[in-house]
Amino acid sequence: MAETGSQFDCIAVMGVGLIGGSIALAAKSCGAARSVIGFGRNRDRLAAAKSHGVIDEAATSSDDLSRAGLIVVCTPVDRIATDVLAALQATEGTSTLVTDAGSVKGSIQRAVDLEYSGDRFVAAHPLAGSHHSGFEHANASLLPGRLCVLTPRGYPTVDDNVQQVRRFWERLGMRVRLMSVQEHDKTLALTSHLPHLAASAVASLVEPAILEYASTGYRDTTRVAAGDPELWSAIFALNKPEMLRGIDRLVSALQQCRIALDEERHQDLRGFLQGASEARRQYRDDPSRPDDGT
Amino acid sequence: MAETGSQFDCIAVMGVGLIGGSIALAAKSCGAARSVIGFGRNRDRLAAAKSHGVIDEAATSSDDLSRAGLIVVCTPVDRIATDVLAALQATEGTSTLVTDAGSVKGSIQRAVDLEYSGDRFVAAHPLAGSHHSGFEHANASLLPGRLCVLTPRGYPTVDDNVQQVRRFWERLGMRVRLMSVQEHDKTLALTSHLPHLAASAVASLVEPAILEYASTGYRDTTRVAAGDPELWSAIFALNKPEMLRGIDRLVSALQQCRIALDEERHQDLRGFLQGASEARRQYRDDPSRPDDGT
Repeated sequence: MAETGSQFDCIAVMGVGLIGGSIALAAKSCGAARSVIGFGRNRDRLAAAKSHGVIDEAATSSDDLSRAGLIVVCTPVDRIATDVLAALQATEGTSTLVTDAGSVKGSIQRAVDLEYSGDRFVAAHPLAGSHHSGFEHANASLLPGRLCVLTPRGYPTVDDNVQQVRRFWERLGMRVRLMSVQEHDKTLALTSHLPHLAASAVASLVEPAILEYASTGYRDTTRVAAGDPELWSAIFALNKPEMLRGIDRLVSALQQCRIALDEERHQDLRGFLQGASEARRQYRDDPSRPDDGT
Repeated sequence: MAETGSQFDCIAVMGVGLIGGSIALAAKSCGAARSVIGFGRNRDRLAAAKSHGVIDEAATSSDDLSRAGLIVVCTPVDRIATDVLAALQATEGTSTLVTDAGSVKGSIQRAVDLEYSGDRFVAAHPLAGSHHSGFEHANASLLPGRLCVLTPRGYPTVDDNVQQVRRFWERLGMRVRLMSVQEHDKTLALTSHLPHLAASAVASLVEPAILEYASTGYRDTTRVAAGDPELWSAIFALNKPEMLRGIDRLVSALQQCRIALDEERHQDLRGFLQGASEARRQYRDDPSRPDDGT
């Protein structure tokens, strides 16, 4: 398939929110799809997304899905497995591919595998987001330059369907990495899910009465704790084994500091902070990082 | 003393870095002092601060301190008690006041009390800072609008010296609060020191190899972990009892989440995140907060 033409004549996006809307906009502007059908539970919201120009067409029944060459499932993480299965079922007997945008991969793949043994589903996790939600904040520039992790069932084997889905995400400007679901879930537990839980735990200890003594350290360390409890408790539950391991490691690091502090082993405490500081500076000083002021 | 004239003819700043330099600049621009003597261990740095216009004069010996009506000790937190005692000794028999800018108060006050029983020292903690250090980044606008906590030894009794020192910090544009050293150290453990330790613990778990999968959640939650290990291990050690209590509470909150997750009590986990989210939103939505994008 030539990169100059559209990769798909038509794709469908299930769940037209911030991510789904951004994928819809990017797919059209990057030539990954000629047209985008939006699919969602709320007809009014879907009609509004259409009139905002985020999607070309609002699906009225699951029959509309069979016209799509690719279906991208962008619903909340605890609904993805069900929606992927619905998409696969609605397109049974076709060559329509299905991918998703869920931030946990193992539990979704296991739930899908229980009822589907074909090769049309290729799981994905585009690492992009924003404090905002809703298609009104959708933006074609949310994705380019960011990583998208694919966790194909047969990894490290890569078949044609995986290649096609890979090409789709790359066409949106994303840098694609392939890994196993286990590696994905362990990595994201440490880089995303555990930081969120730590931020929430710190925020839970600071009573409103003393908030006026909080400064930029509190502000940044706890920022993500303001996020949606529904979404994050679902993520933690879906990534349970890795989160349990991560919490144990975090508690162990804190206990190690507690003992050093209690026994006045200042060298050990300073050494711990030094290691953490060096690790964090590697992130900050990485020239490929798009954000600055970090 | 009329607010239109200068409060002090001359003040001295010990430790002319980011905070000391900002106090020097603000004191002159707000009319808190007509002139500022800088005092420090490194003569070259002090001469440079003078040629940058941050201070009017570089002290050459501790005799110069006796010309100051107020001495503000802005040295690193683990040197403050020693420097406060040196300042009190150099000005023995005068009415020169001494204040400081340390972010821990109890251990400093206890160390001073061991060798000094007079009433010329009034401890302070201006809640202001920046990622930068050094007088080159000093800025008169770092302090206005921020809180400054005074922890006078006789609190809640407030004598004339406390009033004078209070007036000085207010003259710099700061909003002054008075409290006991215990209340200060407990409050700051939760709003500042514990967030820093949590950020460091999270950062310590994320190996360089997976840093490319870190996104804005990691970035903000761990930002302060890049800070100076020397400074922060000193702060933790000086605030040991409150830090030990704080770590125990943080570990207990994390264990509570771990148990809820392990036993699949989703309602409890969501409830915990909900509480943390509401606490954090109170900070974000406070209209008096100077920073936005929080």
